[in-house]
Amino acid sequence: MRLHHVGVAVADLEPAIKLYTSLFGADLTHRASNETDGLEAAFLQLGDAEIELLAPLREDSAVGKFLAQRGPGMHHVAYAVADIHQAMANARAAGLELIDAEPRMGMHGTLIAFVHPRSVGGVLTEFVEA
Amino acid sequence: MRLHHVGVAVADLEPAIKLYTSLFGADLTHRASNETDGLEAAFLQLGDAEIELLAPLREDSAVGKFLAQRGPGMHHVAYAVADIHQAMANARAAGLELIDAEPRMGMHGTLIAFVHPRSVGGVLTEFVEA
Repeated sequence: MRLHHVGVAVADLEPAIKLYTSLFGADLTHRASNETDGLEAAFLQLGDAEIELLAPLREDSAVGKFLAQRGPGMHHVAYAVADIHQAMANARAAGLELIDAEPRMGMHGTLIAFVHPRSVGGVLTEFVEA
Repeated sequence: MRLHHVGVAVADLEPAIKLYTSLFGADLTHRASNETDGLEAAFLQLGDAEIELLAPLREDSAVGKFLAQRGPGMHHVAYAVADIHQAMANARAAGLELIDAEPRMGMHGTLIAFVHPRSVGGVLTEFVEA
């Protein structure tokens, strides 16, 4: 596995994109929105890994609730895996609690699944099939 | 710049090292402790980037206070820079608040400096001279 991206919750994408591109030299690779999850995202390449900026489209979305409860900041860490079904089976066998029972399509156009933060020392953890 | 590591605060290093090595395939590259900062750390390679696990040696250390206030979880994001003095000057010029007025020696044996989370949308941000 490799570290694929770090998800960061922000109230507003534009100033965050400006900060990461101008000051940290990140390349904005693409933007996407997901009406079902009520969020929009911007993907910023920084070497081999990415920062994924997440902003809520609605207050009652998962990211909207995260912002209301914890404020902006680090949201999740994602690892690239060769076979997401295998990664999920290994996690289950080790007793970890998966949020997604089955892989689902993520905004990278690849299969993703989340592991509950209470299984990973408070870190919301995502598998991304590479 | 590239994403250098993600810092994760944990109460106890051993179970966290076991989880990251066994389940996420991370390689434990080295361990270090810093009596001044009151913390011990384990560095886990995951592709081009690292997870830095941080555990407190004392309750009144910065990591000890973080755990007491927020619980275990994501603590900071670090970027590798070619010239840390230049990175700090650019950050200052952009109006960001630096925690370290001057670079200091980090546990990687390289110069580091932290930017205050209130300047980076709630993300405690570190520069590491590569």
